[in-house]
Amino acid sequence: MLKVPEHQVAGHLAIDGKLGPLVDDSGRFYKPLQGDGRGNKELAFYESFSSDTRVPDHIRKYFPVCYGSQLLEASNGSGLLHHLVLQDIVSSHRNPSIMDVKIGSRTWYPEASDNYIQKCLEKDRRTTTVSLGFRIAGLQLYEGKESGYWRPGRKEVQSFTVYNVRSILRRFVSSNSSIGNENSDCSFAPSIYGGSAGILEKLLELKAWFEDQTIYHFHSCSLLILFDKESVSKGSAPVPEIKLIDFAHVVEGKGVIDHNFLGGLCSLIKFVSEVLSDSKESSIKDCVESEKPGICTDNGNCQ
Amino acid sequence: MLKVPEHQVAGHLAIDGKLGPLVDDSGRFYKPLQGDGRGNKELAFYESFSSDTRVPDHIRKYFPVCYGSQLLEASNGSGLLHHLVLQDIVSSHRNPSIMDVKIGSRTWYPEASDNYIQKCLEKDRRTTTVSLGFRIAGLQLYEGKESGYWRPGRKEVQSFTVYNVRSILRRFVSSNSSIGNENSDCSFAPSIYGGSAGILEKLLELKAWFEDQTIYHFHSCSLLILFDKESVSKGSAPVPEIKLIDFAHVVEGKGVIDHNFLGGLCSLIKFVSEVLSDSKESSIKDCVESEKPGICTDNGNCQ
Repeated sequence: MLKVPEHQVAGHLAIDGKLGPLVDDSGRFYKPLQGDGRGNKELAFYESFSSDTRVPDHIRKYFPVCYGSQLLEASNGSGLLHHLVLQDIVSSHRNPSIMDVKIGSRTWYPEASDNYIQKCLEKDRRTTTVSLGFRIAGLQLYEGKESGYWRPGRKEVQSFTVYNVRSILRRFVSSNSSIGNENSDCSFAPSIYGGSAGILEKLLELKAWFEDQTIYHFHSCSLLILFDKESVSKGSAPVPEIKLIDFAHVVEGKGVIDHNFLGGLCSLIKFVSEVLSDSKESSIKDCVESEKPGICTDNGNCQ
Repeated sequence: MLKVPEHQVAGHLAIDGKLGPLVDDSGRFYKPLQGDGRGNKELAFYESFSSDTRVPDHIRKYFPVCYGSQLLEASNGSGLLHHLVLQDIVSSHRNPSIMDVKIGSRTWYPEASDNYIQKCLEKDRRTTTVSLGFRIAGLQLYEGKESGYWRPGRKEVQSFTVYNVRSILRRFVSSNSSIGNENSDCSFAPSIYGGSAGILEKLLELKAWFEDQTIYHFHSCSLLILFDKESVSKGSAPVPEIKLIDFAHVVEGKGVIDHNFLGGLCSLIKFVSEVLSDSKESSIKDCVESEKPGICTDNGNCQ
């Protein structure tokens, strides 16, 4: 039984008779192949990528598994349409907080048409893409059973400033996110951004690959960053995840590194590490101020 | 006694009654302050930079020393004009091979006018700036007493392709550069690009700073890479140098890393390390092929 994804934060939604992706109960995500060639380009990327032995396994895990393509009834009722069949990244999370971060200070590629380049450039300048080297393209933050999710609309997301982005990266790992940006406690930062299985370590692992790989240039591609706040609150081990998605504009690297993606990734890494180190500092401050006979541990918790 | 610099490879030259920089015999370089505000912006950068205690000493050495400004007779005969007084980087080298590498996949900055952005963008797309994240803006290669220097003209430099850039990075460290790109022996690569005082180590040191510093964004800024081939040929210790130059378009970082410069720098690092590792491989091959009872050392030489 196919349905509209519950936790899609960016891209076209399969609602109101529109064309968009669908999911099933077995953890698969069906993305309609867009008719302007982009769908076929994305399918071709997945085919090339999945058989490319130069991609190491520790990097492959940051990409969704692709199960090929399949003819399905399109969500807009237009009849049978080819869909990419992908791993549904979100289905294993119960109440996921998700950020879709489009990486790179330029979303266009040199081979594109002048028209396309101007359109992208205009949006890159209007958003934080040019200034930060990345932009938040969509997000939802789980704020607890009562409040549910904070999921800003497309227009609000597109108007995010550098200041907003910094706040959101704090709110994303805060237990008190609903009470406003300034007071975000960042209490989940040590366990979600920090630690050996945390977001920062994963981003650094990707960075090391991007410093070396010259196979692909990932234009207009996103990093999906997600975790389940509920499980952290309940004390279970959190499983923060990152996955690269959206490969309709990937081109061959031809022996050159993807300096555009790498630069943006380094900028995101800097932002995330600042939230993490701030959270450690404030934990140390809390320990000192409470005058408990506590020790501040490496991950910023008081013992 | 002021004169026209002998080894200037890019920018306006003080010849044929034009405005350009001058040098003296004491190792100072006099750069006329351009009237459109760029000169004052560069002077302001040097003033801010020289007093900024956040810049560590091991990074400061990659910038020319600035001795303030001075009123001098302009080279175009227009009378007294303010000049930036800088360290003449080249004067300590006898027959320097020099590359001026403009770093970044974008030479414009977000705050610039639409007109300026379109002009820069057009040139960035026409050169290797967009594809490589850097472009060679000028160079001279010393090819020995008889041949002198190879110094391609402005038009030739602006038409360099990715292929040309790769060849030039090989020719730059070859003893047989004049016989053509394909056969460059890269025999100076281990001592110029490699080693603890080599270009690669210096670039990596700069990279580490750029991953962290959020003080400045260096738009349209160049890395000057130079060494004295003669001294290497004669067996003296080579002193390869790199310096950042041209700061008329530096803007405040405002807490964001210079992802544009960093990405381009990483791309250049990848190119340089490829020349270095190729040269090591071919040295090993030479050792094996010559069937000498030789050992291939770490720097790629046979013993």
